Amino acid sequence: MKNLSFDQAKEKDKADRLAPKRSEFLLPEKIIYLDGNSLGPVTKNATKRIKEVTEQEWGVGLIRSWNDSGWTDLPKKVGAKIAPLLGSQSENVIMTDSTSVNLFKVLSVACSINPSRKKIVTESKNFPTDNYIIEGVTKQLDKDFEIIYVDGREDIISQIDKSVCVVVLTHINYKNGEMLDISEITRAAHNAGALTIWDLAHSAGAVPLKLDKWKVDFAVGCSYKYLNGGPGAPGYLYVADRHIGKYNQPLSGWFAHKSPFAFEPQYEPAEDISQYLCGTPPILSSIALDSALDVWADVDLQDVRRKSLELTDYFIELVEQYCYDPALQLITPRDHKLRGSQVSFTYPKSGYAIMSALIEQGVIGDFRAPNILRFGFTPLYTSFSDVWLAVDKLKTILETKSWDQPRFHNRKVVT
Amino acid sequence: MKNLSFDQAKEKDKADRLAPKRSEFLLPEKIIYLDGNSLGPVTKNATKRIKEVTEQEWGVGLIRSWNDSGWTDLPKKVGAKIAPLLGSQSENVIMTDSTSVNLFKVLSVACSINPSRKKIVTESKNFPTDNYIIEGVTKQLDKDFEIIYVDGREDIISQIDKSVCVVVLTHINYKNGEMLDISEITRAAHNAGALTIWDLAHSAGAVPLKLDKWKVDFAVGCSYKYLNGGPGAPGYLYVADRHIGKYNQPLSGWFAHKSPFAFEPQYEPAEDISQYLCGTPPILSSIALDSALDVWADVDLQDVRRKSLELTDYFIELVEQYCYDPALQLITPRDHKLRGSQVSFTYPKSGYAIMSALIEQGVIGDFRAPNILRFGFTPLYTSFSDVWLAVDKLKTILETKSWDQPRFHNRKVVT
Repeated sequence: MKNLSFDQAKEKDKADRLAPKRSEFLLPEKIIYLDGNSLGPVTKNATKRIKEVTEQEWGVGLIRSWNDSGWTDLPKKVGAKIAPLLGSQSENVIMTDSTSVNLFKVLSVACSINPSRKKIVTESKNFPTDNYIIEGVTKQLDKDFEIIYVDGREDIISQIDKSVCVVVLTHINYKNGEMLDISEITRAAHNAGALTIWDLAHSAGAVPLKLDKWKVDFAVGCSYKYLNGGPGAPGYLYVADRHIGKYNQPLSGWFAHKSPFAFEPQYEPAEDISQYLCGTPPILSSIALDSALDVWADVDLQDVRRKSLELTDYFIELVEQYCYDPALQLITPRDHKLRGSQVSFTYPKSGYAIMSALIEQGVIGDFRAPNILRFGFTPLYTSFSDVWLAVDKLKTILETKSWDQPRFHNRKVVT
Repeated sequence: MKNLSFDQAKEKDKADRLAPKRSEFLLPEKIIYLDGNSLGPVTKNATKRIKEVTEQEWGVGLIRSWNDSGWTDLPKKVGAKIAPLLGSQSENVIMTDSTSVNLFKVLSVACSINPSRKKIVTESKNFPTDNYIIEGVTKQLDKDFEIIYVDGREDIISQIDKSVCVVVLTHINYKNGEMLDISEITRAAHNAGALTIWDLAHSAGAVPLKLDKWKVDFAVGCSYKYLNGGPGAPGYLYVADRHIGKYNQPLSGWFAHKSPFAFEPQYEPAEDISQYLCGTPPILSSIALDSALDVWADVDLQDVRRKSLELTDYFIELVEQYCYDPALQLITPRDHKLRGSQVSFTYPKSGYAIMSALIEQGVIGDFRAPNILRFGFTPLYTSFSDVWLAVDKLKTILETKSWDQPRFHNRKVVT
């Protein structure tokens, strides 16, 4: 790897304005972590806060900490920290439940806004849980609903007509990292009188977003990927101003009540975004997310996007130059406008074993059936040297076929 | 307090078989904690595990820990630890989401089992979130549902006729600690062809339960009270064998799929209790619960019940003997068969200020509007000396009227 030398990678690191951010994370030694699009690493600040909350706020403060340590306010507080990453006002975002539960809520509301329309447009390649939830909501609401599964980006807008109730899409595809145009699709939906729900699992913290400006109706997202909230950290959701206080989501638990602690016998929905809460939030997991979000305070998302594209371009360039295996095929768009912050390759039949071999060598990416090797690039802590070293390992593994051993064929995978 | 002396309390502690359990908890100094029915304290084991999971499993293991550290299996593993506390087989209990979300799931299923019946029986004094969720589910399913709010235990069974779809009740009332007879009410419901859903928030870990034997259909519960799972720890739910694999709950997220990690485009429900999962579980909060449950491994629930009744009897006896304030009225049943593990008194107008003054003095109970002072007794770590010292403080506060100061009038409360 002479032309694209390791020295060049180190030069890129020196010029990287985001490089100092890496020191805020606890990254294991001898690991090149290219799976932050699946589970972000822990921040040093979060480890400190989790200990503090466990031993002091819970351990000593006990029940008093719901007020004294602000636990009650965490869903809004965390929502307000996520809001700028979405291009939203603080009042439109709240942390709560999981992405799947949140999609159930906002989709139920969307269907109630457009009650005479019984068509939902989604992508067949959407992240499965989203499509499972669409099935769940529609079965519960009305068996007449029709779900249109579009097969590719080019067919989305043509499927949106005046019979469509809501368009439910994931902004950046989990398999190949392809990015849709939220603004364009939302406009098309609105022109047809339809609503949009966007899943931002692979977007928030990875690419700049402008939900308010794009007039998105609802969005849901996951905070354990680019937001580093920790395994299974609570999800979040966004509701446009025009829908808040007008419609009620059906999971009307006590945290969604106007006065949760008045213990009133009848349900009176909160008039703000709190109506999208349900039960008591998991505090330890919420605190991890809350403190992880502090790393964004001094970060310019344009810098993140610029570095993300540099990292992914660099990775593609290195792989194509040095990994001479015709079976390895890029499936992530080369066009910057269509690319999120991950790069995926297919490798027929043996993709799984190759990823397992890479992981054994300390380069952690992941695998998606049937044959996809996924690599996530997270500008806050991924360096250009990481990229170079990862490709160097991949090169050796492919050249030596060291992946072709039984022990590389038995790993389970989780997003 | 001579006749019922502190020495006598200490004697009771010496004779207490559960007394050694207290050392497994991290209890703050100079605090008498009688609010474990609201938020249980942290176990020493949990503080250790939370640190380990944060720094090692998440910090170093990263995405690999979903498999290598068994995160994927936590919902079932934790469910299996809760099962014996409910009188259930392991396969019928799973940890997931919050109590409110779980009630939404099982109530949706119950309504689908009995589709021609449109009446739901509950108590007007049920914990509010349960009744809010009943409203939420029925509004979404069918506007023709009728919710019958029964005003007292004596009227429950008479309201259950052949038009009733499901009876949704909380076993032990959050305000006065009154306990219903699950077995009797479930039998009456079944005789009428109705189903039962029991909320066990104030029961599991407080009183022995026999869900299988009582033929309960569904149950939900909260793990941050007597189970000490930590603030907002995930809830759990129970489904009787005869309903598992036959009906599907509507929050069909990917963890409820037969093969979650196969990322199949169509939803195929898991055939076991996993179908009641939804999205990714919050691991830090789940781990706290998982390790907290280990304190039960060598505990006989009959001992817990015996001590619970001794503690609550003793508290009532001491208060009635020493707190000469006619405004203070017991609202918890004296009959053991009707009592959970808490004791509540009303004190018109000033209950709130009295509880605030008690808390300032280091005796932590809580307050429920409009005038209820609640005291929870948790046999694993509450001592008879605690009870004596708490009453001694209460006695002084009432005698001196030290509660009658402005600073005692501004505390918010959380269950």
